[in-house]
Amino acid sequence: MMAPKYAPSLRGYLPPMTLLLETTFISLFAFFVEYEDPAVIRTVPLTDVYAAFQDVNAMVLLGFGFLASFLVRYSFSGSAFTLLVTSLAVQWAVLVDGFLFAFRQGKIHIGMNSLATANLCAASALISMGAVLGKTNPAHLMIMALLEVTGFMVNRWILQTFLRVQPVDAIMLLHVFGACFGLMVSWVLYRSGLGPRHEKETTDRRTGLFAALGALFLWMFWPSFNSVLISQAHPESKLQAISSTYLSLATSTVAAFLVSVVTHPRGKINMIHIQNASLAGGVAVGVAVSAVDVPWVAMAIGLSAGVVSTLGFRYLKPHLQLVFKFHDTCGVLSVHGMPGILGWAAYFLIQMVRLSDITEILEFTVFHLCTLLLTLSLSLGLGALTGFLIKWNLWRPPQDRKCFDDQAYWEFPHLAERK
Amino acid sequence: MMAPKYAPSLRGYLPPMTLLLETTFISLFAFFVEYEDPAVIRTVPLTDVYAAFQDVNAMVLLGFGFLASFLVRYSFSGSAFTLLVTSLAVQWAVLVDGFLFAFRQGKIHIGMNSLATANLCAASALISMGAVLGKTNPAHLMIMALLEVTGFMVNRWILQTFLRVQPVDAIMLLHVFGACFGLMVSWVLYRSGLGPRHEKETTDRRTGLFAALGALFLWMFWPSFNSVLISQAHPESKLQAISSTYLSLATSTVAAFLVSVVTHPRGKINMIHIQNASLAGGVAVGVAVSAVDVPWVAMAIGLSAGVVSTLGFRYLKPHLQLVFKFHDTCGVLSVHGMPGILGWAAYFLIQMVRLSDITEILEFTVFHLCTLLLTLSLSLGLGALTGFLIKWNLWRPPQDRKCFDDQAYWEFPHLAERK
Amino acid sequence: MMAPKYAPSLRGYLPPMTLLLETTFISLFAFFVEYEDPAVIRTVPLTDVYAAFQDVNAMVLLGFGFLASFLVRYSFSGSAFTLLVTSLAVQWAVLVDGFLFAFRQGKIHIGMNSLATANLCAASALISMGAVLGKTNPAHLMIMALLEVTGFMVNRWILQTFLRVQPVDAIMLLHVFGACFGLMVSWVLYRSGLGPRHEKETTDRRTGLFAALGALFLWMFWPSFNSVLISQAHPESKLQAISSTYLSLATSTVAAFLVSVVTHPRGKINMIHIQNASLAGGVAVGVAVSAVDVPWVAMAIGLSAGVVSTLGFRYLKPHLQLVFKFHDTCGVLSVHGMPGILGWAAYFLIQMVRLSDITEILEFTVFHLCTLLLTLSLSLGLGALTGFLIKWNLWRPPQDRKCFDDQAYWEFPHLAERK
Repeated sequence: MMAPKYAPSLRGYLPPMTLLLETTFISLFAFFVEYEDPAVIRTVPLTDVYAAFQDVNAMVLLGFGFLASFLVRYSFSGSAFTLLVTSLAVQWAVLVDGFLFAFRQGKIHIGMNSLATANLCAASALISMGAVLGKTNPAHLMIMALLEVTGFMVNRWILQTFLRVQPVDAIMLLHVFGACFGLMVSWVLYRSGLGPRHEKETTDRRTGLFAALGALFLWMFWPSFNSVLISQAHPESKLQAISSTYLSLATSTVAAFLVSVVTHPRGKINMIHIQNASLAGGVAVGVAVSAVDVPWVAMAIGLSAGVVSTLGFRYLKPHLQLVFKFHDTCGVLSVHGMPGILGWAAYFLIQMVRLSDITEILEFTVFHLCTLLLTLSLSLGLGALTGFLIKWNLWRPPQDRKCFDDQAYWEFPHLAERK
Repeated sequence: MMAPKYAPSLRGYLPPMTLLLETTFISLFAFFVEYEDPAVIRTVPLTDVYAAFQDVNAMVLLGFGFLASFLVRYSFSGSAFTLLVTSLAVQWAVLVDGFLFAFRQGKIHIGMNSLATANLCAASALISMGAVLGKTNPAHLMIMALLEVTGFMVNRWILQTFLRVQPVDAIMLLHVFGACFGLMVSWVLYRSGLGPRHEKETTDRRTGLFAALGALFLWMFWPSFNSVLISQAHPESKLQAISSTYLSLATSTVAAFLVSVVTHPRGKINMIHIQNASLAGGVAVGVAVSAVDVPWVAMAIGLSAGVVSTLGFRYLKPHLQLVFKFHDTCGVLSVHGMPGILGWAAYFLIQMVRLSDITEILEFTVFHLCTLLLTLSLSLGLGALTGFLIKWNLWRPPQDRKCFDDQAYWEFPHLAERK
Repeated sequence: MMAPKYAPSLRGYLPPMTLLLETTFISLFAFFVEYEDPAVIRTVPLTDVYAAFQDVNAMVLLGFGFLASFLVRYSFSGSAFTLLVTSLAVQWAVLVDGFLFAFRQGKIHIGMNSLATANLCAASALISMGAVLGKTNPAHLMIMALLEVTGFMVNRWILQTFLRVQPVDAIMLLHVFGACFGLMVSWVLYRSGLGPRHEKETTDRRTGLFAALGALFLWMFWPSFNSVLISQAHPESKLQAISSTYLSLATSTVAAFLVSVVTHPRGKINMIHIQNASLAGGVAVGVAVSAVDVPWVAMAIGLSAGVVSTLGFRYLKPHLQLVFKFHDTCGVLSVHGMPGILGWAAYFLIQMVRLSDITEILEFTVFHLCTLLLTLSLSLGLGALTGFLIKWNLWRPPQDRKCFDDQAYWEFPHLAERK
């Protein structure tokens, strides 16, 4: 058995890292975290938040997990590393969220809202993971997830504290933050050895259907994703968020079919476009959610997001890789990055139409621009730092030949059987 | 490249059709549709309807979508065309429902109930799509869906307005309407070239499991399907609808196993029977939902529906195709048509037992008969019309050899890769 | 056609058994079961229980069903027999639960809580089914399910009546009861002909992903499983149950990865460990649910459960089979048995720390020990009896060569096609 035949073993780093992390987390929880006070719990019916929390939970584990299983030889890693990263990210997110936003008298009190917020943060870590999927090992993914969650929380805290951004608006920038962070890491980690297209980076009918399943889970529950943090005290805002998301997903789905067919020489549809660009409407409306208050606007945003996203998959993704050395496995730039910025722009336009006073307009313009610029600089900067940190050979990245391949990490008893 | 080698390209009609439809829909929404008034929204807790709406949403997209992926070479089309048709059908259904039932002072006000109703109508369009799956192109499916939704809404409007049928009872006839409409279209489109059994019209272990997944989604959430439109103001009716559906699904599942084994010479079970006939109980109890008020009646209806449906699959489906030139890809006659009519008959019987006055009995008999006859004639008539409309060569139907084949519509990058 | 070539046909026993059972069930329902009184229904908002019921429903049908589809040649049976067993078990469980706990004035009144309880009992029958999967026919499974449900209900009744155990604590022992019952049946049915490892008892990438889907469904909805029976009148207990379950699942997932890598010579992860040991945290916290009231304790229980469960899979399962002739197809001892007992021990420890008075401590120790001993003796004893009952040749067990093989029970039209 010559060493180079095998991918570097996980034994050297995964057990000590996870053990250290869990010890730290459990100790921090023991010192600082308690359940919400009964008096506070009784103010809001528990089941109201719980149902939406479950939907988000399903999106994170099943939606992202199975969407990430689209690579034919990497489907075990795609779905199971999502589970591992989510499990660690939510524990960490509860702590960071608590320390930054709910630290009172030396304690953090957690309830359904804390868990829902932690789940949304885990989603932003999973988005960035999408950009580097297949080219990284679990240690890379864990480090990325923890740094991304920290950075995203700090970004939220700055936006809410200094720019007076509403909590819902601040958290919905998770799409932009996650995508930019992930792309930057992917850019730093770029290795020419993977070539313009790795032989194992393919999909087939089987993993295509599993990824479709993941995409449908995201589609179905996206209305909960965009509305979970809106308080029951404002049912009209909640209804608007739910319905707008639903309608914009419907239009972005139609747009994905339209553009996918138009841009193919023989008019064929690409399953990857449908799976991903169908969701662009949910992203864009999510970022603009507090501003959208009529159905047709949501539908128009969804349609544009679907068009932009499909075009991104068809033309931008291959181009970025060849020219700028950006390799983006799941196309997070097209699914989360560009539709997120589109949603930000839609928010801006809607407010411009509404406001009449020139000072108000100027003030809003400056604040809204700062929100985006800050998010972009923090995510890109932290992404670059993280990239350099995990580029280190200490973390034993998979060899080029072992990228996009489950065999590097998974025991396959049925193969051993056949020998 | 000789033309006949390839299926007709989608470029010629899918992009212009979808663009036209979306432009029309967004314009109509811009002129006529607004969100519900905050005062109205506050009357009912939003989350009560939302959770059931999400269940129905999951049934429509995932349930019907994956149940339709059972054909081994047509699973991409089965699941993705379901998504496309649903996206268009719900937008149209919100408009038609609004114009017919909720048009006040030049505006339609939409809320959770409108979206839930639109989803149920999309389900009826998907049922009719099941009858022609694999033999049609997306243009056919889109035209069918829009006409079916319109016809079904008009049927509901006539039943509710002239025959004083309760809204819930009127909408539950969606199974009968959808099945008859689809069968009629399928009959008009019949082409002998497809033979008694197309070589590609097969299933295997992989698509069998995906279809089982779809069927389980329908099974699990069917109680929500039958109860979503029952107001929270009548919790006892809602509980009865939920429990009756659940119990009748349990008995129809057992019946499906029983009959499938009995009718096979070597006592083997057919997965397609289990996937479909298990759901017959939900259909039958749904149509009779306002009348069923004791558990054992629901169970007896479920058992009978399961028996009828499995027998339909085993004997009626092949017979219809050979003798009457009816080809019914998903067996919607056996899953939705016959169990729906069984539910209608059960409703009738229960009322007969309850009523004592002879004039009441006569009156009810006439009304109840008219309800069915009207639904049948409208659905069959409109189905025939739609069939003739889409038989037109303008819509470029797939060649016989390209039926039941994803290759006609989908880009398979992994196949290109292997060249 | 020589007889031994084929597995014994289902025709001889499945149809008469199911017919008999359904006739009995429907008759008993007709005589004894009614829907809850409207006055009672109105006391609790229906949707509160309904949403959690739906989650449990999804776990039972989809979670257990697809987790049981992991065997590459037995996936149809795994998922569909789960559906059949559940359908029968819930009908029977509603009756037994009603007669033992809610029989008033000759009638049983059922509502959402009865159906949720019935679903939990069906889960315990499915757990025991996991131990004998692939080596039994549907008749065996149906008999096991009915006896297991009866025994489990009687166990609950004794615990609640004589040992004053809280209903939630009594029902959560379903993991221990189901696992011990199933293991005992499996032990009695042991046949040497299956060898240390049956050639068909394998998994692959496809069924591995389907099983992962089932596992994720169980993971996602486990918080509902542990909290569904906690009344809305105690929202703080409900919140604790939900959050504790969620956090302990997160830590047991991390533990599963950790131990799976550490115990493999080349540091590879085993998908079966991840799918199963990730759930151990939900089991352990479930059994201890009334005692856990701080987050870190839940996390520590989850971590330990994940460690114990993965070690059980890696070392105990093969050892038990070779030395003690215990063959446990799904590893229910490691997923439900040991983590369940760990949860029982954690409950004990937490109470020990809390109580100060020595008589209280002694009293609690005796009661808590009796609870476990009674559950163990009842489940093991009844399991042995059931094993001997179904070992009888009358039930025509599958031949050794036909074990773990769908071909014994299922019609595969696509194979016939290829001839």
